[in-house]
Amino acid sequence: MIVEIVTTGTELLLGQIINTNAPYMARRLNEAGFDVLFQSTVGDNRARMAQVLAAALARADIVITTGGLGPTQGDITKEVAAELLGRPMRLHAHSLERIKSFFATRKLTMTDNNIRQAMIPEGALVLDNERGTAPGVVVTTDKNTVVHLPGPPHEMEHMLENAVIPYLRDRFGVQGTIVSKVLRSFGLGESSLEERIKDIIKGQGSNPTIALLARSAEIHIRLTAKGTTQAEAEELIAGLEKKVRERIGEYIFGTNEDTLEAVVGRTLAERRLTLALAESCTGGLITSRITDVPGSSAYLAGAVVCYSSEVKQSAVGVPADILAAHGAVSVETAKALADGIRSRFGTDLGIGVTGIAGPGGAMPGKPVGLVYIAVAGKNGTFCFEHNLTGLRGAIRQRTALAALNHLRHYIAEL
Amino acid sequence: MIVEIVTTGTELLLGQIINTNAPYMARRLNEAGFDVLFQSTVGDNRARMAQVLAAALARADIVITTGGLGPTQGDITKEVAAELLGRPMRLHAHSLERIKSFFATRKLTMTDNNIRQAMIPEGALVLDNERGTAPGVVVTTDKNTVVHLPGPPHEMEHMLENAVIPYLRDRFGVQGTIVSKVLRSFGLGESSLEERIKDIIKGQGSNPTIALLARSAEIHIRLTAKGTTQAEAEELIAGLEKKVRERIGEYIFGTNEDTLEAVVGRTLAERRLTLALAESCTGGLITSRITDVPGSSAYLAGAVVCYSSEVKQSAVGVPADILAAHGAVSVETAKALADGIRSRFGTDLGIGVTGIAGPGGAMPGKPVGLVYIAVAGKNGTFCFEHNLTGLRGAIRQRTALAALNHLRHYIAEL
Repeated sequence: MIVEIVTTGTELLLGQIINTNAPYMARRLNEAGFDVLFQSTVGDNRARMAQVLAAALARADIVITTGGLGPTQGDITKEVAAELLGRPMRLHAHSLERIKSFFATRKLTMTDNNIRQAMIPEGALVLDNERGTAPGVVVTTDKNTVVHLPGPPHEMEHMLENAVIPYLRDRFGVQGTIVSKVLRSFGLGESSLEERIKDIIKGQGSNPTIALLARSAEIHIRLTAKGTTQAEAEELIAGLEKKVRERIGEYIFGTNEDTLEAVVGRTLAERRLTLALAESCTGGLITSRITDVPGSSAYLAGAVVCYSSEVKQSAVGVPADILAAHGAVSVETAKALADGIRSRFGTDLGIGVTGIAGPGGAMPGKPVGLVYIAVAGKNGTFCFEHNLTGLRGAIRQRTALAALNHLRHYIAEL
Repeated sequence: MIVEIVTTGTELLLGQIINTNAPYMARRLNEAGFDVLFQSTVGDNRARMAQVLAAALARADIVITTGGLGPTQGDITKEVAAELLGRPMRLHAHSLERIKSFFATRKLTMTDNNIRQAMIPEGALVLDNERGTAPGVVVTTDKNTVVHLPGPPHEMEHMLENAVIPYLRDRFGVQGTIVSKVLRSFGLGESSLEERIKDIIKGQGSNPTIALLARSAEIHIRLTAKGTTQAEAEELIAGLEKKVRERIGEYIFGTNEDTLEAVVGRTLAERRLTLALAESCTGGLITSRITDVPGSSAYLAGAVVCYSSEVKQSAVGVPADILAAHGAVSVETAKALADGIRSRFGTDLGIGVTGIAGPGGAMPGKPVGLVYIAVAGKNGTFCFEHNLTGLRGAIRQRTALAALNHLRHYIAEL
């Protein structure tokens, strides 16, 4: 069964509000076994709404609208669809009673406008609105199932979960379930990663499926499987995941909602290791990400943001002769930062980062984007050179992720 | 000219990511004088994408797509449209050179996949991508203008602003101009702010207009005016801005793209003042925001993130008896952090922040969300108490903004 979601409302069309209903509905419907293949948005204009709805009715089996069930003259979704389907509108006594009591309970005056919300296309199934005044509606024809949901997200979500999805699964006899899992990778570009698992991607059938998604500096690998049971779907995912991990396992740092800082933090906590950082070009960004994780005080002692050479010396203990001989942006300074902060703060691990985030600050032989990341611990102090491009913000973000990833690998070897 | 925005990508269709491109494009195109009347979303499937594009070409004059210009096999937007329009794809030498040099600069290996990005429909206008590898494309026919933009927001936005909108306005002879100005405020809630300028909002006509927009902890006041000339529109804006500032001027810290850290940074640089920070509960977030501004090394000496009591004492110089008598989350500790870091780093100004970001860490009389922010300088050391609600991330973000705002007010009195 092909589903199209039609979101209506001029404020959506003009970009005055972000459309969060469509992604919510799409996600839940897909999980429930329905293929959402099209999404459309149109304003509160009769002719254009009719055009969009007619196209949807032609290409989809199930058309689900959201918005335009309110009491104002601009709320026309139900009427426009009913006209297309040749259904006259009738006053629905039960819904009118519910609306009246909604106002009475809240000691509000009901206006005549609200009566419009109780007008229902002939022969439609009415879905009570537990969280507002506009009832939902299901109209069925030989070809289509048309569902109208209210626009406010908390009303729409409640009705979708409790009435629409159970109704549709029952009506279309949908069995089984869909499971998705995201493998999160860092350190390999999108095309290089695709290159390594190209045969798996090209050779995929319709179940399970695999897809790549670039998310700032991370690449996410999404695995999806359908099964008659949860266990069956999970088994399909597990088989595919194993194949993918055999190729690019070292780049996968976590799954689903895992962030690099959460993954690294979990390991530090489990192994009772402590950490301190000396950040120059990232200016506190790495520490800020680490402390974004609840409970990070268990492993993070602290950090020094050392923009100036004076602070590098006084607060981190970088020897003046290293700065003089090699400059602030150098392998030697990065290592001295990592060693210095580890020793000053008495931690198991130290990270030192120095580089040129731009747009200014480039020197001969040291372009914007040159970054050194050092990790110090009982296995020694290692430094990694990166040459990054992009704007200041992107260079800083990528450096932060790279530092966390180097730390992840360092800990794995401890 | 009727515009349709077509966003492509299976991850959008499945609701795995929120579509922020469509509202951004809709808003900017409407401001530029083009009516966006339809928005569609379709996945990376040839047949269905062709169906959606054909419908768009039939009902709109200008069709703008975003997404699907990447290097992978799933990126098909350009090809599907070219096939519909009967344009063969040709290798575009200039674009290939740009992509090659993009990879060379990053010292990355370009894979053959990326060559696909340099394939351009015959006769198309190519828009260089200043922020990524995929060039944009404009294909014109007797009936339609078709524009393909990349999916990553920072690439799309740059191309839309700098290439597409100027091109479309020129090509379709759009006269007149629309000017928008955003006044950015902090420190007053949305309803309190609305209450103070309610009559201005209610009494507005169609030109100029005013709208409020809550953006995390900031409230943005958006002023928009149309004029036959830029000067005429700007004059309308200026009149409205004056009225608004008379009511809530003290809360407005900047305009348009100004951030609090950029505004504060500008003042620090102009007045040759230096700054150091000691952050506990914000864990480097304030310093990270400050160093996000290019040139911040001119005024930021550095910072210490002092999660543990040991680091508060050893690296910032908070006296042990203050911590013992008042606890880490107290007025006295906040002041000692600000004074200590200012003295250690020898700066004009010091900021000390301590609090409970949650979800753990609450103590009797010290709930999650209790935050102390101290600012130290030659006028003395002042401490501000905040009681914030929300999740850890929101408390940290709001604390960072509040600290920058306290610093802004402190400097204004110097």
